[in-house]
Amino acid sequence: MLAAQFSSFGRPDAVIELVEQPDPGEPGPGEVTIDAELFPINPADLLNLEGRYGAEQPALPMIPGAEGVGRVAAAGAGVSHLKPGERVLLPGPGTWRARFKTSAKAVFALPGGVDPKQLAMLRVNPPTAWLMLHEYVAPKRGQWVIQNAANSGVGHCLIRFAREDGAKTVNVVRRAELADDLRAFGADVVLTDGPDLDARVRDAIGGGALPLAIDAVGGSATQRLARCLDDGGTVVNYGALSGEACMLDVRETIFRDVSLRGFWLRRWFMQTPPEKIAALYRDLAARLGDGRLAVEVEAVYPIRRIKEALAHAARGGRKGKILVSFDAA
Amino acid sequence: MLAAQFSSFGRPDAVIELVEQPDPGEPGPGEVTIDAELFPINPADLLNLEGRYGAEQPALPMIPGAEGVGRVAAAGAGVSHLKPGERVLLPGPGTWRARFKTSAKAVFALPGGVDPKQLAMLRVNPPTAWLMLHEYVAPKRGQWVIQNAANSGVGHCLIRFAREDGAKTVNVVRRAELADDLRAFGADVVLTDGPDLDARVRDAIGGGALPLAIDAVGGSATQRLARCLDDGGTVVNYGALSGEACMLDVRETIFRDVSLRGFWLRRWFMQTPPEKIAALYRDLAARLGDGRLAVEVEAVYPIRRIKEALAHAARGGRKGKILVSFDAA
Repeated sequence: MLAAQFSSFGRPDAVIELVEQPDPGEPGPGEVTIDAELFPINPADLLNLEGRYGAEQPALPMIPGAEGVGRVAAAGAGVSHLKPGERVLLPGPGTWRARFKTSAKAVFALPGGVDPKQLAMLRVNPPTAWLMLHEYVAPKRGQWVIQNAANSGVGHCLIRFAREDGAKTVNVVRRAELADDLRAFGADVVLTDGPDLDARVRDAIGGGALPLAIDAVGGSATQRLARCLDDGGTVVNYGALSGEACMLDVRETIFRDVSLRGFWLRRWFMQTPPEKIAALYRDLAARLGDGRLAVEVEAVYPIRRIKEALAHAARGGRKGKILVSFDAA
Repeated sequence: MLAAQFSSFGRPDAVIELVEQPDPGEPGPGEVTIDAELFPINPADLLNLEGRYGAEQPALPMIPGAEGVGRVAAAGAGVSHLKPGERVLLPGPGTWRARFKTSAKAVFALPGGVDPKQLAMLRVNPPTAWLMLHEYVAPKRGQWVIQNAANSGVGHCLIRFAREDGAKTVNVVRRAELADDLRAFGADVVLTDGPDLDARVRDAIGGGALPLAIDAVGGSATQRLARCLDDGGTVVNYGALSGEACMLDVRETIFRDVSLRGFWLRRWFMQTPPEKIAALYRDLAARLGDGRLAVEVEAVYPIRRIKEALAHAARGGRKGKILVSFDAA
């Protein structure tokens, strides 16, 4: 069985290697085996390969990957809720491999008729956006949420979820040429980042309420978002694309009661009962099925070309995710 | 009536000026007049005079001052809960003046037999420490709280309040020579700040729980405190002695669920019913009376020497507060 792994931290396309690993064998009682179809390369994967992800360094060698989609190969004794051929999320972390054997308990069948490329990106970005929008200070109908790195997978999901709620989005990007595409996708306001961001946001939203900011960047970008918030607002940080610590001026913390929180999807997995996790994924998969939710894909590489895929994923200026497929493996 | 005011922002002892203002006159129905006795000079006052305090610049000229103590001069018709001669907190902001006329509603008699120098410092530091310790994630008996700028007025109060609760304090200071005095005052652990602070804290507290950090400094000092916290812990920021924005690494926000909040006493005043405010002050004044609570005083200047008092307050290396007295005015 083919797997992608790395044995030292470094440039992702340099340190990744394809290896043959023993097939996991037939499923035991209560287990299923799953054949992988597709996985995406996420920013967190790149950080992981570079040794910059998580509070502690992981042990090496390591198979990376937080998500992907596949089909049930075989179900062991006592497994009644899954049948061979049904599409399921790959159990993670460690999804960059061809075959899995796992307890069937946390595995659930995805709805049919949904593009598997979209399902391959279901596990991380959609619940990240969903939970950040709803679990801190959910903007009410007519209220606003501001996010940076708005052209990301999470950014796209957040735009769509906010629209469903009747809330509006201010989307901060680095490249002005993204604005038309994002507006066509559903963004209400698109602005480039800059020191006068708060003044331009206030011009754009008038007297609208802005209680929530979603920060993927860190550094001074955190402060620029915080400055846009209403008094008492919350910044939820889930990334550090700047490579810098979040900055928050006391003008915001002390005098305007702005809070900074962090979101990590893996913590939600650890703290949430499996049936509640499955229910959210079924809701989100249904949205992928009917088009309420969609994430752009820029390219699909076969697993044999994983190094090219990683180099592509590490480049700026993309318009969508890079996926890797086992079909041609 | 004498008042201290400033008409432009700058070095505090340079911009402060003593002026004569009209006496406020006799109290009307429901009003009292108060003669000032003493006020302290707090770090926030210095920032205010320098134009670095608050979310917006105040209109000038301005009479600074957030606290102080005085005696009721006269009570108007219908005021039954206050008598001339009773000691009360000065109504603020704008306490650096000789006489006040104000609605009697928010004024309450302080207990007798308490050192007026201590009462002059009751309004700001004790409730600040009390509320930060109790209103976010109050450490339980045997748990720890960490604070920087531990030799401040707030720091001293926090040490005493934590002891009352059976909680323990890690006190971070810049000067190692403060350690013995702080330990004598009640501090459990005293450490100097530095990049390895978290390792030294863990050595000192063993497996103890550390859910709360109190930050008066900002900049990278915020991050150093955050690094010491348990997963899920909270940093409460109430000052920016570094002059820098609070920094918080995503290692803390995302992967360890550490939150950053801000505390501003003035917001608490605005959001809390007067009777609840009075009740807390009576509790805190009783602690000043029986010695459970005390703040060090380094010097008392007469109001005529306010410039010297401000220059003294702006110097580092003090061991206690600078007070200003109207007695010799």
